[in-house]
Amino acid sequence: MADAGVISFAGSPIDRADHIRTNEQALGALMNWKARVLGLDGLLPQMGDDGGLVWGTLADVDDKAELVFLGMMNDKAHFAAVPDDGATGPAYAMPRAWQAIQQLSPEDLAIYGGARSLIDWHARHQFCAKCGGKTTPAKGGWQRNCSFDGGCGAQHFPRTDPVTIMLVENDGKLLLGRQPRFPARAFSALAGFVEPGETIEEAVAREVHEEAGLRVHNVEYIATQPWPFPSQLMIGCYSQTDETEITLDVDELEEARWFTRDEVEFAMNNIGNDEGEFNAPPPAAIAHSLLKWWLDKTA
Amino acid sequence: MADAGVISFAGSPIDRADHIRTNEQALGALMNWKARVLGLDGLLPQMGDDGGLVWGTLADVDDKAELVFLGMMNDKAHFAAVPDDGATGPAYAMPRAWQAIQQLSPEDLAIYGGARSLIDWHARHQFCAKCGGKTTPAKGGWQRNCSFDGGCGAQHFPRTDPVTIMLVENDGKLLLGRQPRFPARAFSALAGFVEPGETIEEAVAREVHEEAGLRVHNVEYIATQPWPFPSQLMIGCYSQTDETEITLDVDELEEARWFTRDEVEFAMNNIGNDEGEFNAPPPAAIAHSLLKWWLDKTA
Repeated sequence: MADAGVISFAGSPIDRADHIRTNEQALGALMNWKARVLGLDGLLPQMGDDGGLVWGTLADVDDKAELVFLGMMNDKAHFAAVPDDGATGPAYAMPRAWQAIQQLSPEDLAIYGGARSLIDWHARHQFCAKCGGKTTPAKGGWQRNCSFDGGCGAQHFPRTDPVTIMLVENDGKLLLGRQPRFPARAFSALAGFVEPGETIEEAVAREVHEEAGLRVHNVEYIATQPWPFPSQLMIGCYSQTDETEITLDVDELEEARWFTRDEVEFAMNNIGNDEGEFNAPPPAAIAHSLLKWWLDKTA
Repeated sequence: MADAGVISFAGSPIDRADHIRTNEQALGALMNWKARVLGLDGLLPQMGDDGGLVWGTLADVDDKAELVFLGMMNDKAHFAAVPDDGATGPAYAMPRAWQAIQQLSPEDLAIYGGARSLIDWHARHQFCAKCGGKTTPAKGGWQRNCSFDGGCGAQHFPRTDPVTIMLVENDGKLLLGRQPRFPARAFSALAGFVEPGETIEEAVAREVHEEAGLRVHNVEYIATQPWPFPSQLMIGCYSQTDETEITLDVDELEEARWFTRDEVEFAMNNIGNDEGEFNAPPPAAIAHSLLKWWLDKTA
């Protein structure tokens, strides 16, 4: 990995303890008074007075709630309960989620992010996509089985969607764009889902061409981030182009522009100040890490 | 990208033409006598006398079949029909699929792989995972909508599962393992799904520790491959360890061993010969590309 510094939502201190998930007896034995259950309000974290996550016990959980096994930490099993409803909107429409992102320590943020992705998947996958039957959790919540009487018996696994997010450079300038839903003056790296049948490098080239009409080469992997709104693997890349003329896909982007190194540096040093040419992405976003990496690289 | 040479299933010559998918009128206008439809026998490719894919017309398609828009090539729209059933087993249990892999040109293989992943996803996602209602295709087959009367209206997108596959080196030797289902004497790179809440580098470290009991560092991204059985993004990495003692996860692996550079080189030069210390993975697998990259790097 190129050195992109701290990546938000990475670095969870929980041991996923895969061997326990698959061992029903071992898992059952861990569901005792020592077990800790993540304090949640639906998908949102309860926040402690110290600004950290809150952990309760199994006694705090609704009898009917599905439980997922997050893993082991400090010799204790850690769980989270699946809420009745999954996420209904993107992260930018969740002010309380953003508040938590800013307050939680890196370790707590990583624990919360992983747990949120997993329980949100359960909440939105109560039925079998193959036959429409009801599904039930298995393997400590890392699987769901079609268990409908007369159903197909299909097994389903938590979903993680790979997304490419890329810097595009031409002659010392960076291409950044803004989606209509972005806060005022905010620009960030272009991004798009990796589709079936393409590599990371092909997805980067396709997205930049679709959204900005530019042909890139020398695509380079920099770093990844697990992004829990709802469950994306953000694959941060760097690329170069010999072209400068932008053809905007107005369905995706409101604007895309070239920024000089000075403009990027000023924006990164003035986050939240509403000064300079644009507002840079916040530290929680991997786009922030990519810009920091580029500033270091070109220093 | 590090130079890992040719990656099988990558390099499709089809332009995915994203702007057409979202434009119902444009898509409809392309469904004419010029349109080409991939010749399939369920999920398997029909093979032409020249060893290439076979393309028919819309007249060859069952009226009731769902059609997906693969994209544009040579000014013609290219489609594939969704079969009644999705895949029921892994690739190694599909001799006819392996035969096609060996016969098709790189371009045809990439076209087939992308099409196969997409239509297999449709075949296995006829119902809404959120509410159990029936779904119908949208956006040229790059989306399915819950359209059940009284259903939830959820949108669903083709799934691509990120998987890490990694070389592990210690002092000039490589760790390779064999799963019980592998052909006799076959060893390959360890691999495992990226889970919600972890980076690529964290997934590599976790998998190697789970399967072989070794702690790795210096994880490096090498290349990716879209693998269509059913739809994985194989993320090829290289890592190092200071440890040598293997603790095998017998649920995952039958055996794991350290191989010298000479042993790896001999195996790569004798694929299919049943000679040397082990049988190396075939060119279609990204593990093959990773081993080739390592031999070049250490030459």
